[in-house]
Amino acid sequence: MISFTCDYSEGAHPKILERLMATNLEQLPGYGVDHYCESAKAKIRAACEAPEAEVFFLVGGTQTNSTVIAAMLQDYEGVVSAETGHIGVHEAGAVEYTGHKVLTIPGHQGKIDPTELREYLEAATTDPNYEHMVFPGMVYISFPTEYGTIYTKQELEEIAGIAHSYKLPLFIDGARLGYGLASPACDLTLPELARLCDVFYIGGTKVGCFCGEAVVFPRANAPRHFYTITKQHGAMMAKGRLLGIQFDTLFTDDLYFQISRHAIDMAMRLKAMLKEKGCTFFIDSPTNQQFVVLENKKLKPLAEHVAYDLWDRVDPDHTAVRFATSWATPLEHIEELRRWL
Amino acid sequence: MISFTCDYSEGAHPKILERLMATNLEQLPGYGVDHYCESAKAKIRAACEAPEAEVFFLVGGTQTNSTVIAAMLQDYEGVVSAETGHIGVHEAGAVEYTGHKVLTIPGHQGKIDPTELREYLEAATTDPNYEHMVFPGMVYISFPTEYGTIYTKQELEEIAGIAHSYKLPLFIDGARLGYGLASPACDLTLPELARLCDVFYIGGTKVGCFCGEAVVFPRANAPRHFYTITKQHGAMMAKGRLLGIQFDTLFTDDLYFQISRHAIDMAMRLKAMLKEKGCTFFIDSPTNQQFVVLENKKLKPLAEHVAYDLWDRVDPDHTAVRFATSWATPLEHIEELRRWL
Amino acid sequence: MISFTCDYSEGAHPKILERLMATNLEQLPGYGVDHYCESAKAKIRAACEAPEAEVFFLVGGTQTNSTVIAAMLQDYEGVVSAETGHIGVHEAGAVEYTGHKVLTIPGHQGKIDPTELREYLEAATTDPNYEHMVFPGMVYISFPTEYGTIYTKQELEEIAGIAHSYKLPLFIDGARLGYGLASPACDLTLPELARLCDVFYIGGTKVGCFCGEAVVFPRANAPRHFYTITKQHGAMMAKGRLLGIQFDTLFTDDLYFQISRHAIDMAMRLKAMLKEKGCTFFIDSPTNQQFVVLENKKLKPLAEHVAYDLWDRVDPDHTAVRFATSWATPLEHIEELRRWL
Amino acid sequence: MISFTCDYSEGAHPKILERLMATNLEQLPGYGVDHYCESAKAKIRAACEAPEAEVFFLVGGTQTNSTVIAAMLQDYEGVVSAETGHIGVHEAGAVEYTGHKVLTIPGHQGKIDPTELREYLEAATTDPNYEHMVFPGMVYISFPTEYGTIYTKQELEEIAGIAHSYKLPLFIDGARLGYGLASPACDLTLPELARLCDVFYIGGTKVGCFCGEAVVFPRANAPRHFYTITKQHGAMMAKGRLLGIQFDTLFTDDLYFQISRHAIDMAMRLKAMLKEKGCTFFIDSPTNQQFVVLENKKLKPLAEHVAYDLWDRVDPDHTAVRFATSWATPLEHIEELRRWL
Repeated sequence: MISFTCDYSEGAHPKILERLMATNLEQLPGYGVDHYCESAKAKIRAACEAPEAEVFFLVGGTQTNSTVIAAMLQDYEGVVSAETGHIGVHEAGAVEYTGHKVLTIPGHQGKIDPTELREYLEAATTDPNYEHMVFPGMVYISFPTEYGTIYTKQELEEIAGIAHSYKLPLFIDGARLGYGLASPACDLTLPELARLCDVFYIGGTKVGCFCGEAVVFPRANAPRHFYTITKQHGAMMAKGRLLGIQFDTLFTDDLYFQISRHAIDMAMRLKAMLKEKGCTFFIDSPTNQQFVVLENKKLKPLAEHVAYDLWDRVDPDHTAVRFATSWATPLEHIEELRRWL
Repeated sequence: MISFTCDYSEGAHPKILERLMATNLEQLPGYGVDHYCESAKAKIRAACEAPEAEVFFLVGGTQTNSTVIAAMLQDYEGVVSAETGHIGVHEAGAVEYTGHKVLTIPGHQGKIDPTELREYLEAATTDPNYEHMVFPGMVYISFPTEYGTIYTKQELEEIAGIAHSYKLPLFIDGARLGYGLASPACDLTLPELARLCDVFYIGGTKVGCFCGEAVVFPRANAPRHFYTITKQHGAMMAKGRLLGIQFDTLFTDDLYFQISRHAIDMAMRLKAMLKEKGCTFFIDSPTNQQFVVLENKKLKPLAEHVAYDLWDRVDPDHTAVRFATSWATPLEHIEELRRWL
Repeated sequence: MISFTCDYSEGAHPKILERLMATNLEQLPGYGVDHYCESAKAKIRAACEAPEAEVFFLVGGTQTNSTVIAAMLQDYEGVVSAETGHIGVHEAGAVEYTGHKVLTIPGHQGKIDPTELREYLEAATTDPNYEHMVFPGMVYISFPTEYGTIYTKQELEEIAGIAHSYKLPLFIDGARLGYGLASPACDLTLPELARLCDVFYIGGTKVGCFCGEAVVFPRANAPRHFYTITKQHGAMMAKGRLLGIQFDTLFTDDLYFQISRHAIDMAMRLKAMLKEKGCTFFIDSPTNQQFVVLENKKLKPLAEHVAYDLWDRVDPDHTAVRFATSWATPLEHIEELRRWL
Repeated sequence: MISFTCDYSEGAHPKILERLMATNLEQLPGYGVDHYCESAKAKIRAACEAPEAEVFFLVGGTQTNSTVIAAMLQDYEGVVSAETGHIGVHEAGAVEYTGHKVLTIPGHQGKIDPTELREYLEAATTDPNYEHMVFPGMVYISFPTEYGTIYTKQELEEIAGIAHSYKLPLFIDGARLGYGLASPACDLTLPELARLCDVFYIGGTKVGCFCGEAVVFPRANAPRHFYTITKQHGAMMAKGRLLGIQFDTLFTDDLYFQISRHAIDMAMRLKAMLKEKGCTFFIDSPTNQQFVVLENKKLKPLAEHVAYDLWDRVDPDHTAVRFATSWATPLEHIEELRRWL
């Protein structure tokens, strides 16, 4: 049975496996100071056109979010996020576990609205009880969002401008970054994104790796001793080579972007097919996650042939479901899905 | 240049790489519920002769220690450890970051002494200020220890008995477990170890894996919702398959023990060679870490040919150094080291 | 100038001062084990008709909330509260600082709705991603709420029933408990309240004390070692006598209820006067906090004679303000306010 | 029966009670911004000859220690303390609860040795595994120490110099500060102490107050938003007047020093009497805590007449006991003790 459940169903891109094989018995130092890590960092700096960027390799998304957020906030600060932000909903309270509140503003198909952000920050910082409340200390967004949507360059500029006017850093969760940048709806490049925010990560787990997220502080602005902080959070991999080799491979010969484009190509074909089938879209997503509304009575028969993700209840008779493509999705899977829809 | 610096210098055992290749495009669910994880857990239960054991796969040692300890302690409790215990020294305060104190007792070449443990627990629990102090909530030991030493079965029985008489669980850090069990000095089996303690882990990172530690609660005694706790600690791998496949391979056809025995075989040859060379031993270690005292003036010339770990200053003219073998150490490396000593 | 700003503007009830004077040079043990603390606890148990209740004296409200919540939750649990709950808004993130999320549901003039609570808990505990989310671990309400409103006995029974059906304890923040119980709208007694919930506190700071909150676990159900937990949270007073003597006085000859009734009597006269003056009420509060809408242009002139609390912006020309009475409010203050309104 | 158990057996100095009475019905704002707090702060600044000092009033010692330490450390830092330091032993893990390790060096009758401090810091900061360990982030000492001893001006200058040479702040726990400064052995003034350290507190609980510790950052060097941090730690008193009035009284007409001198005067008479009685001293303490070794068989009979603190077991037949004087100790108590010794 084929699966569109998520974008982390397969192992790693074959080129990564090849490199792991080829380098396997090379003896390397641990904890991320080997030459593959160094090479991967240099390539990421180049891809970001950020020669001063500090790059760290962490293992997974929840871990990366809580480590970066805790490292950048003061104890009395919280992180501002859309109500639907991954950090506030699906990370088992990992941010709160580090002592920080997730301060929520409305999410619009996963996105925050610049005007609402400004109003929130203005109200928060001028509240007469300000000193008895959690201070906003950072703005968190995801790109693409949990709903597959992306911000335009202008929206991102506005959000960054607002955050910075309140002296707050902007953090972009890029667990699916490649799929956002490769979207035909994206009017933004990686260097532009790196320039606009204060920290972001390049998701590896969902874009070709077994595991790994590359955290980028674009202007040599990593919190002091971030390396030790990752150790303290249990986020440092002893065999750092596993992360270094994977990212070195992804950032060689444009592989990261190439496989992201493949996923988006598949997603656009999937979307077209769903349209042809007359499906109602739950969200008009320009990235690798596609959301449609299905009749409940169709859910079970479909599930016998194709795995998908139940997303949300729409009404007593209908449910929103998610189909995700990835770097590994073959064209035949879309044809297969077409058959059973 | 060859390296004896540590036991995590190479990638993964070739059989693991093969399995990763063979399964790479199989679509599997995330977060550790795939059939490889299930199979690996079943094999670990069998190897431990603990049919009710609950097994969880985490990523690395520091992460595993802080997650297990935080999960098993009440807020007002600390973990009792040798002064030299890894959790108290080389984990960047990861345990304290979760809110718990590491309560220390003397370490004797890395080991705690049963009598001293009993005296400590008795004094702590009868102190007139008991209620204003941190309560001992767990006993932590490593097997082998950070100094390569191991506990005898009788010592372990005593320690477990004492811990249990104070109603404390015993936690065994098995980052190098295989190398302990494979030692000729070890009079203990994996099932016996599992029977004696309340939680332990089977180290993968240092024994053949890219990453991964298998936490075992031998009597269905995992803390409630330990799965969610691992998520909250950023210790859950999205592509759980990476851990499941590795451990499934290690526990197929006795591979874990076989490669551990190889490492010990190499260590014993190394030890014999060091003796032949007239080296003074810093510790008489029966496992894969060997510690000798070298003249300072020899350190630099040796380092041009062989990498090793500086362990401790002995006197102004001498330094203790560590040579570690692993599943990947070839016999030639020992011959090479002999040449340059 | 007189003040209606809040209910903690004055010192302590004169009878408390008298007792502090009378006992001042008596030598007593520290940390809450003196005979005044014991006597106060016995009187509170009697007032609650809860002979098995465990009672602890803490210093202030935020401290009490975060200590009780942290003590009763498991690490992976959060506390369910109205969006407007004090713990989620005006405590500077004290709950999150202990590692726990405040899970919010709508507030209706400060109150949660039983049906919405049930729906929230049902959705949370049946979510397919349940294990990746924060578990609801406790229900928190305040009585009276931050908006002066109170729950009826039936509402409280429903809320308790729902919480208990999900195996969650119900925690009642009683910072202003006396003013709630003394309200003419209250159909509930202290023993009934104690019977319905699992932990609550009897606010002293706002009801006659210099400081102090009496935490009551009505059925000998305090978390293990709660005494040590208060120490760990910095919530244990060395001179516990200060708290013991205050509460002992408050629970002698019905003083707590008597002074609460006075505050409510003053509040009802205040309310009547505000009605006479034609004020629009922002909330119809039956307790010691009264909220009316004033024209902005009247705010400044009034502030020259009477201090009050700015509560909320209503529209560009109007603001909601709060007038609070307390055990210490003299009738003349209401007459004085009448003059300047 | 009389008690020498501790220095917090009585209530508050009579002048404090008078002021509380006199000001009781004055309506004042909450949370430490009333004019008594302002006045007390001004007087403390004057007494410290530190016109730029920032002063905060917290409630108790454990709370103050954990709040100050957490506020001044980075997440990856720990606090260096004598093994016998209050923060590491008798505060129920309050520092660790905030996520920080207490890094211990030897205590010599409660004092740290400058040379050992320097060696520890040098070793810690040059350890090859430095980045995998907890960074020293602050030096904590108590004055007087838990053993009644005090540092000389020269020792304090050395310790401060060493701490500052490693860019670490020096924190002085002054829970008994008055009793240290009033000692005949003290060659240091309050302004000198304020000049040498980076933060300290003037203990009120043990020196005349019901409760309260005045934290002083002598050079306008409080951590940003320390006010909010105290709220987050549950360390802010709603009726801040209780702390303001107490400290305002203590720092009017030299009262703090005057009552401290009384306690020391009583301690020196006590010490002389103990010498006359032929007691062996456990520690030669120059402050209000006196420690002598008693035969075990004398303990019980004495306890029928005088309460004292069991301090330590000396040998099977002898025990060290503590007698503490305070601002409230009358001369007759010493005569009474003489009778029963």
